[in-house]
Amino acid sequence: MFTLDERLAADTVELDRWSLCRVLLMNDAGYPWLVLVPERVGLRDLDELSAPDRMQAMDEIVRAAGILRALFRPDKLNIASLGNQVAQLHVHVVARFKTDPAWPRPIWGVQPPKPYTAEALADFRRRFAAAQK
Amino acid sequence: MFTLDERLAADTVELDRWSLCRVLLMNDAGYPWLVLVPERVGLRDLDELSAPDRMQAMDEIVRAAGILRALFRPDKLNIASLGNQVAQLHVHVVARFKTDPAWPRPIWGVQPPKPYTAEALADFRRRFAAAQK
Repeated sequence: MFTLDERLAADTVELDRWSLCRVLLMNDAGYPWLVLVPERVGLRDLDELSAPDRMQAMDEIVRAAGILRALFRPDKLNIASLGNQVAQLHVHVVARFKTDPAWPRPIWGVQPPKPYTAEALADFRRRFAAAQK
Repeated sequence: MFTLDERLAADTVELDRWSLCRVLLMNDAGYPWLVLVPERVGLRDLDELSAPDRMQAMDEIVRAAGILRALFRPDKLNIASLGNQVAQLHVHVVARFKTDPAWPRPIWGVQPPKPYTAEALADFRRRFAAAQK
């Protein structure tokens, strides 16, 4: 049975469950940052997904990207499956801005996460849900 | 008409041309590091690919991953479309090792690239071609 990695569970909040992926928000108000986790057991890398799951993963990545684009009008999207620290397969989908703290570098490790306030989190959830309609 | 971004052209060597992507080797012997560039004009982000191109991109990403896996038996694959510095859409497919200089961090910006020797490059080309068969 699929269970979310403990570190991912600690660092994120769940926004939704799509057909393949659990849709998480990284609890870091520094960047609009989604994490998609295919609900499949024991996978570490994208190429371990079955062929149909791979296509579904691409669809959901594009869907997540579209929502961030609509909500934030970013300068760039960063999409990445790294997983050197958390082994469970997960895909980062991040809205980047020329004014963000890490630009033009990748975001990982640049600054400690700034957790959302309860209010900001509720606002994100509301906007995310509205953008899915 | 598609032309490869000048910085990508300077930093890589071409290994092959697949049905969608140009297959480049990052000229950095620090990591086995491929870069896939869809031969489409004016794209910056994965979600700008047409639906069929997106599926083809996923296939070619998995194909590149499989070749790196077969050749290097890495501990992890890193797959990423970042493009904060080079705007042209390109996807990194990198073989990572627990013993590599950046582990467990992402590779970008950790150390200056170490260009391949002519001999090492010829060897990589030969092994890459053999792995495709």
